[in-house]
Amino acid sequence: MSKRKIEHLDNVKLNDSGDAVVIIDQTLLPNETVYLTLTSAEEFFEAIHQLRVRGAPAIGIFAAYALYCLAQQIEDEDFSGFITELKKKADYLNSSRPTAVNLSWALNRMLNKAYDAADKNKASALADLKEESLAIHKEDIAMCKAISENGLTLIEDGDGILTHCNAGPLATSRYGTALGPILLGYEQGVDFHVYVDETRPLLQGARLTSYELEKAGVDVTLICDNMASIVMKNGWIQACMVGCDRVAANGDVANKIGTSGVAILAKYYGIPFYVLGPTSTIDLASRTGDDIEIELRDPDEIKEKWYEKPMALPETHCYNPAFDVTPNELVDAIITEKGICRAPYTKSLKALFD
Amino acid sequence: MSKRKIEHLDNVKLNDSGDAVVIIDQTLLPNETVYLTLTSAEEFFEAIHQLRVRGAPAIGIFAAYALYCLAQQIEDEDFSGFITELKKKADYLNSSRPTAVNLSWALNRMLNKAYDAADKNKASALADLKEESLAIHKEDIAMCKAISENGLTLIEDGDGILTHCNAGPLATSRYGTALGPILLGYEQGVDFHVYVDETRPLLQGARLTSYELEKAGVDVTLICDNMASIVMKNGWIQACMVGCDRVAANGDVANKIGTSGVAILAKYYGIPFYVLGPTSTIDLASRTGDDIEIELRDPDEIKEKWYEKPMALPETHCYNPAFDVTPNELVDAIITEKGICRAPYTKSLKALFD
Repeated sequence: MSKRKIEHLDNVKLNDSGDAVVIIDQTLLPNETVYLTLTSAEEFFEAIHQLRVRGAPAIGIFAAYALYCLAQQIEDEDFSGFITELKKKADYLNSSRPTAVNLSWALNRMLNKAYDAADKNKASALADLKEESLAIHKEDIAMCKAISENGLTLIEDGDGILTHCNAGPLATSRYGTALGPILLGYEQGVDFHVYVDETRPLLQGARLTSYELEKAGVDVTLICDNMASIVMKNGWIQACMVGCDRVAANGDVANKIGTSGVAILAKYYGIPFYVLGPTSTIDLASRTGDDIEIELRDPDEIKEKWYEKPMALPETHCYNPAFDVTPNELVDAIITEKGICRAPYTKSLKALFD
Repeated sequence: MSKRKIEHLDNVKLNDSGDAVVIIDQTLLPNETVYLTLTSAEEFFEAIHQLRVRGAPAIGIFAAYALYCLAQQIEDEDFSGFITELKKKADYLNSSRPTAVNLSWALNRMLNKAYDAADKNKASALADLKEESLAIHKEDIAMCKAISENGLTLIEDGDGILTHCNAGPLATSRYGTALGPILLGYEQGVDFHVYVDETRPLLQGARLTSYELEKAGVDVTLICDNMASIVMKNGWIQACMVGCDRVAANGDVANKIGTSGVAILAKYYGIPFYVLGPTSTIDLASRTGDDIEIELRDPDEIKEKWYEKPMALPETHCYNPAFDVTPNELVDAIITEKGICRAPYTKSLKALFD
């Protein structure tokens, strides 16, 4: 098989002077590739909330860099004053989106690093924060590669793969999670036929996933969310691969709205349903999916966003949850950088942390 | 319970002078209510093909009126020459969309009426064609009312009902089919909470169904197609009600793309799934759903239609089937104007025609 090379995108990075975060504004894709340089707490919050940066791992990396930038802006030279301010800024960033665990995970990791700074000194805390944010990013690149390698063992050359939303390079680092096996396989000369749910209302599948796969050279077919059933019935899908925003201790998976529907269809058609994500997405403190808070978003994302004219009357009520929970009974495997977990998940997920 | 009155829309009608068909241009709803007056074969074809008039029963009524208008334009005074021309025009109209059986059903009914004209005379054929087209419309109004009454026996005050696409007044006459029990119930003081799938890519649920229900005063919540799973999980849905474009002899149902997915979700959550339509939609010549041709439409309906900017790259391939087939095993009942059919459908559907 021929080896092929994919050009990786820099979706989130620290700028050269180390005081700002540079991101691709994902809301403008696929029509424009615009890089934003962000420095203030309000800009960071807005970028997460408005999904300019999105995808659980990417949000974690972004939040780490953002907190490091904000730490440099704290004027208090006293260590305990510095820590108090830093904690406030972390809380503010953490309130930008409730469901993705990586956001609080990355912020807590950064805070702990600052607390532990040598000599309880602001300068050493800043140095440690920079190092920690770069480490979080570097680890994510390695994690995505390991997830991709593990996932690739589950699928075969020529398989049709259905994915929902975006768990590719833009949502993570380099290979991505759900798209990782596909992209890594592509580099190794293994070809997949990828079906991408457009993923209403924010169309991450259309705008981001089909864009990433097309640019990489992978065979991709874009469908509406409600076409997942017919492509499965047509026999075109051998596996579903999706990312995750939070995995509960029992293997229930919170991911982009519509994921649970795909899992139910896959079960009906006898197609394996795989969830891919780093262990940082696993939240043992959430016992089941019922413990996971589901973010509700603006109804206008359904009625008006993207369109030339509104698609429903102004008075029409909408329900717009950003995520749903796929029950563990529908999940054939959870693929992490540390290995592949299968049911019973309460045992297999816990073992990852032993 | 208080009685309430719904104002019915005239979605398709013959104009006063009886030589043109007047329709609401459904592609412009909900932002503009524009009536079109159509007279030529090309205009009729375009109106069906571009979904200005849509919904299987409405297409049947429209095609009958259209063929009557075209019949008046035939110059040949000789009866056999007239019939030959009429057949050509019917074939042309029939080629505008392949899946809806009502189109060919109405055209065949009109042709048979013309063949049987008294004295094999053009003038009497024209009079019969007018009468037949008006009869098809009048029968549809009565059928929808009967379907609504039958469907209303299956649901209760306070129920949450999920519907997909549009099988309301705009797609039919007066009460509609899938929306009929809801609207008739509303008039009788029975309240339902209706959840409407927006129905990508053409958004008939958002643009038409939520519009019709909102205008009627019914409690309606618009959702994206991929949110059907979570609203069922939330316990908000007590029944699914959808229309149909063609029902095979074994009870397999061709309906708007995504219907089969809704049926699979309903089965998983233990919610009854009902299909509502006139017996003219039942095609005993199609043995199973595999015999039903599925219309494939333009990929740009997914990537570009409605939007300010394209949502995927120009080179990205799309699959855009307009319908899918729901297998009979997922259908709890098929509700017609003649009564409610249950499995085994091969027997219960056939009995409707005995």
